[in-house]
Amino acid sequence: MTKLALHPDRLFPADPSTRAIARRLYERIAGLPILSPHGHTDPAWFDRNELFGNPASLLIIPDHYVFRMLYSQGVPLEELGVPRVDGGSTEADPRAIWRRFASHYHLFRGTPSRMWLDWVFVEIFGLDEVLSAANADTYYDAIEAALKQEAFRPRALFERFNIEAIATTEGPLDPLDHHRAIRASGWQGKVITTYRPDPALDPEFEGFQQNVERLGELAREDVSSWKGYLRAHENRRAYFREVGGATATDHGHPSAATADLSEAEAERLYARVRSGSCTAAEAELFRAQMLTEMARMSIEDGMTLQIHPGVHRNHNATVMAQFGRDKGADIPMATDFVGALHPLLSRYGSDPRLNIILFTLDEDSYARELAPLAGHYPSLRLGPPWWFNDSPEGMRRFRERVTETAGFYNTVGFNDDTRAFLSIPARHDVARRMDCAFLARLVAEHRLPEDEAHEVAQALTYELVKQAYKL
Amino acid sequence: MTKLALHPDRLFPADPSTRAIARRLYERIAGLPILSPHGHTDPAWFDRNELFGNPASLLIIPDHYVFRMLYSQGVPLEELGVPRVDGGSTEADPRAIWRRFASHYHLFRGTPSRMWLDWVFVEIFGLDEVLSAANADTYYDAIEAALKQEAFRPRALFERFNIEAIATTEGPLDPLDHHRAIRASGWQGKVITTYRPDPALDPEFEGFQQNVERLGELAREDVSSWKGYLRAHENRRAYFREVGGATATDHGHPSAATADLSEAEAERLYARVRSGSCTAAEAELFRAQMLTEMARMSIEDGMTLQIHPGVHRNHNATVMAQFGRDKGADIPMATDFVGALHPLLSRYGSDPRLNIILFTLDEDSYARELAPLAGHYPSLRLGPPWWFNDSPEGMRRFRERVTETAGFYNTVGFNDDTRAFLSIPARHDVARRMDCAFLARLVAEHRLPEDEAHEVAQALTYELVKQAYKL
Amino acid sequence: MTKLALHPDRLFPADPSTRAIARRLYERIAGLPILSPHGHTDPAWFDRNELFGNPASLLIIPDHYVFRMLYSQGVPLEELGVPRVDGGSTEADPRAIWRRFASHYHLFRGTPSRMWLDWVFVEIFGLDEVLSAANADTYYDAIEAALKQEAFRPRALFERFNIEAIATTEGPLDPLDHHRAIRASGWQGKVITTYRPDPALDPEFEGFQQNVERLGELAREDVSSWKGYLRAHENRRAYFREVGGATATDHGHPSAATADLSEAEAERLYARVRSGSCTAAEAELFRAQMLTEMARMSIEDGMTLQIHPGVHRNHNATVMAQFGRDKGADIPMATDFVGALHPLLSRYGSDPRLNIILFTLDEDSYARELAPLAGHYPSLRLGPPWWFNDSPEGMRRFRERVTETAGFYNTVGFNDDTRAFLSIPARHDVARRMDCAFLARLVAEHRLPEDEAHEVAQALTYELVKQAYKL
Repeated sequence: MTKLALHPDRLFPADPSTRAIARRLYERIAGLPILSPHGHTDPAWFDRNELFGNPASLLIIPDHYVFRMLYSQGVPLEELGVPRVDGGSTEADPRAIWRRFASHYHLFRGTPSRMWLDWVFVEIFGLDEVLSAANADTYYDAIEAALKQEAFRPRALFERFNIEAIATTEGPLDPLDHHRAIRASGWQGKVITTYRPDPALDPEFEGFQQNVERLGELAREDVSSWKGYLRAHENRRAYFREVGGATATDHGHPSAATADLSEAEAERLYARVRSGSCTAAEAELFRAQMLTEMARMSIEDGMTLQIHPGVHRNHNATVMAQFGRDKGADIPMATDFVGALHPLLSRYGSDPRLNIILFTLDEDSYARELAPLAGHYPSLRLGPPWWFNDSPEGMRRFRERVTETAGFYNTVGFNDDTRAFLSIPARHDVARRMDCAFLARLVAEHRLPEDEAHEVAQALTYELVKQAYKL
Repeated sequence: MTKLALHPDRLFPADPSTRAIARRLYERIAGLPILSPHGHTDPAWFDRNELFGNPASLLIIPDHYVFRMLYSQGVPLEELGVPRVDGGSTEADPRAIWRRFASHYHLFRGTPSRMWLDWVFVEIFGLDEVLSAANADTYYDAIEAALKQEAFRPRALFERFNIEAIATTEGPLDPLDHHRAIRASGWQGKVITTYRPDPALDPEFEGFQQNVERLGELAREDVSSWKGYLRAHENRRAYFREVGGATATDHGHPSAATADLSEAEAERLYARVRSGSCTAAEAELFRAQMLTEMARMSIEDGMTLQIHPGVHRNHNATVMAQFGRDKGADIPMATDFVGALHPLLSRYGSDPRLNIILFTLDEDSYARELAPLAGHYPSLRLGPPWWFNDSPEGMRRFRERVTETAGFYNTVGFNDDTRAFLSIPARHDVARRMDCAFLARLVAEHRLPEDEAHEVAQALTYELVKQAYKL
Repeated sequence: MTKLALHPDRLFPADPSTRAIARRLYERIAGLPILSPHGHTDPAWFDRNELFGNPASLLIIPDHYVFRMLYSQGVPLEELGVPRVDGGSTEADPRAIWRRFASHYHLFRGTPSRMWLDWVFVEIFGLDEVLSAANADTYYDAIEAALKQEAFRPRALFERFNIEAIATTEGPLDPLDHHRAIRASGWQGKVITTYRPDPALDPEFEGFQQNVERLGELAREDVSSWKGYLRAHENRRAYFREVGGATATDHGHPSAATADLSEAEAERLYARVRSGSCTAAEAELFRAQMLTEMARMSIEDGMTLQIHPGVHRNHNATVMAQFGRDKGADIPMATDFVGALHPLLSRYGSDPRLNIILFTLDEDSYARELAPLAGHYPSLRLGPPWWFNDSPEGMRRFRERVTETAGFYNTVGFNDDTRAFLSIPARHDVARRMDCAFLARLVAEHRLPEDEAHEVAQALTYELVKQAYKL
């Protein structure tokens, strides 16, 4: 049985002199508090502070990184307990699910999931052998026992993880009751929300018509007109700031398209969209126009605007029909930014009050488009490597391709973007180590003095995050 | 004169600790037998077992990697003995051709051709100086003398190379006489065929109409109907399995487009295609539909389906007119997989009985599209770096970009994809070394325990190939 | 205050054995003269040989690499003294500009600008602390004082820099008076021009109609006809060769599109273009046809043809309106070469007399398109990493992605492509070091014998430049 150990030099380059520099850089930032400005943890955890469930319901069933890999090797989602849309039966025994996972653990070799999970096993649960079919039950018992203890409640872990602030993400119709309750509870943990208006902004979102109706009711605005619709968003943004402490919005469109229509054109388009019979091109144009409107609102109310484009969501029709959205079948696509952002940037891009953070799953755009854009426009910053690219090699490619044109200071530090709460420290640690590894190479190759590298490491871990998200 | 030596540590990272790990990993797999599941050797070699020709006809005239490089630097193809379409005269003296090649050998510095050729010179022919104009004749004489010996016949080399199985590739009209004869000969070498139906599947292939007619005759099916045409392919697939031991099909389309037409639509399209007057778009749609039909057949008969898309074939009109196809003028293009494969995958992608292997020449799709697709769909695996990417740097980029999302176990080991028989061991050796080099970095950076890296190296070299190709 | 030192091993890999090889390779080429075959220095400098201005007007105001970075972080261009289109007031005090630059110097960490600037500070001005707000005035005073000395005049620096030849770039209407004067002056410095016909070739260029008119006058050709227009270009090319020593032309189109129209089609298109009312598609087609015409002229007159495609120029409408062209708002786009170049290459690509050098800002095309094209067509060579890619990581990616398919000998050495005269030695030094670093890895990994690496390093630095540009 292989011993499971987290080596103190993990992720640092093997060359001894470079590794020594990386170690020195890392030592000074390893203990900094975690800022998690973009993610998908459940605010109910921090409100209710209930015990987490069993090992399978905590670590496997909700984690599409995990079950997609098993599914790709022929393990049916039913056998992993993923709930069916039709309520049909799936595996109900968490221990059986855990054993299936354990017996396929070799599939994760070389993936970030393996690093995050090993960290959780060692650091949270004190396990010290690599997971396998042979020790699946030992693991299950140990984790199950731990999850019954007070120290494993959400708030205790939040404090143990040294989280200075964490942002969740809510739809525009969310009442933010959990955020309200957290604030009222007297607990000091800083949990804020993010305004994600897609359900009432994207005409192709399920239930868009009703969502817009409800948006109008909540905002007490007449959404039958374009202007009323915009005021409704402005109103909800204000609500998200006041009740949920939001400092940012987030937009997950299929493309990065923006538009700058005349008011008359926008009104006509809105009428089409509201009629429920718009074409795919009209839906795309509406999302495009709304990004520009959101940029205008951001200038007015100071919220940071995040754009996460370029994903073909729910690519697997069979899985979508049986298990619904977000089941590991989202596939990135080639994404243009240069033409797509031009309308928005021509209108607002030179305004230094505007603060847009761009994300991509198309790494080809890093050096070709994103670094030149962020290295010019005062309104643009680059988000960290996202989703599939939130990995050691993904982080290395990001710094190698972005830094020479955009520098470090047009980037915004790390986002964990996760609902896997227990892995959050592991994810931030990977980012810190990879930034130190990159900086160590620059120092070792005499491209940056070491004292400046220390400053950069600190900025990437802490200051740039606070600035970009106004935390 | 520089000594020509194959260093035992070649291709391993220079860092001493990483190199030591790479060495340990490599030692355990270096001697494994060769599985060559996709390639273009001539089955007649193994059937007739005749002596190979002279140094030029063996190593230069048929190798487009070699003559394209000389052509790119102004050496006319005529001077290299490449045959003309019109039968016009070209260089007939193999020694003159060899000298031209030798005097340009510096052009190959830094290319995989140089590595493969040097391996052949040292390991097959025992030469020990770097090839140059000065020693061209020494080389020529030594190789010519060797090629007259029994030990250099195809079957002897096959055994010396420790080839456990090799797949050739034949068109759908091929009678497979050589394969039949090999099996009847009592020789133990395992040589199987692969079903490559492009000539009778791609409406833009020269002679498509006649090829379909002949397909029908061979299969004793009425190819005037869509259903009869499909049955004809089913019949030929069965023939390829029975007579040639085929376990896989292969498809070299300009794009990865797939379609899922209704039977009525498909029938109408087939009628258009058969009429000989279809448009380019109809030809593309027909190929697209046929990939989906081939997937269905694969589910039924268990054959592995290989897709090799994204090449602008015969880009140089002058060379095409004078020398014909496959003369080093094939140029890769940007290739979409996400939209292109959607119809096929929506229909059959979730079926774990289906086994599709995707290849690409567009490395941008590795991390963005292919790894997310293969890391989700049970039917998809990723083929190794192909053609221009079958090189040390190409292999490194493949592992770096694919592994973190798809893992190692959604890949299928190495393909040599070559007709250059003598270089096959060298090509497999490069792949083994580069996989060990990649794994050694993971171990050195404490991302994977060394005992697990040994298991992965073994899987990449042997087990995954056997599984993917059902060898 | 951090000491500013240029380490003798800068940019070499940290691994000691690889670094030692890199050092040995570099030592033999470090002192070779500079060949600068493509750039944007002002021939007036070498003609008039006047003292340069103040530190801000020399190093900041004309350098879009520098001011774009400060602008991206909210520093208005007015505060950096960039002149306004309307002549409105901008910062007039060079010392104030310098202080703003100095206080933002940390933004350049990790960028090539930082390396070039530090080299200039140390090697040209003898400064020995890293620039910061604290020592901004010390810097300013030292540089200002130096710029008043004879040794800092253009010709003295040219000689000190060991420049064997430098090419400037002029529009087709330029009388080349400075080049004429340089030649008449008796000074030995070799300064040649390059024919950049865009202003009288691109229908979307400002003033195109008048430019063509003037072209006809200068060439004494009747440009009302297509044939006369072509003769006018032929005439100006001859003038550029005779008066300015030109050996090359240069073309900066939005795409790499080429066309091969019949004469009748071309005549009709020219008439449309001359009428001033052509569409965007017609303008694109005209540029495409003209590239093919220029290729024909190159075969006839021997000039090297450079293509620099793929930039969305002046992306920021606000900056364009206020400050005009070339203000750091040029953004690269995805660029196709395979289809785009097909018409030209089908016509002339197999002619070894033709010498085309391709540049790209879309690195994805390196391995996928450009290396396969250059590794086949006798007429094609690949230019060095350009603009945003003229950086250590950009150079590394270029060699890693290009070499295995195109080899070294289908590349053409380095271009500095700059108007920042003082940084020219620094830029060439980065390229030499990065080439040696790449070669050292090949040697350390036993992929290339060291004696051959020495030959390659020499070729990349000197011979290939001379050949490609006929210097």
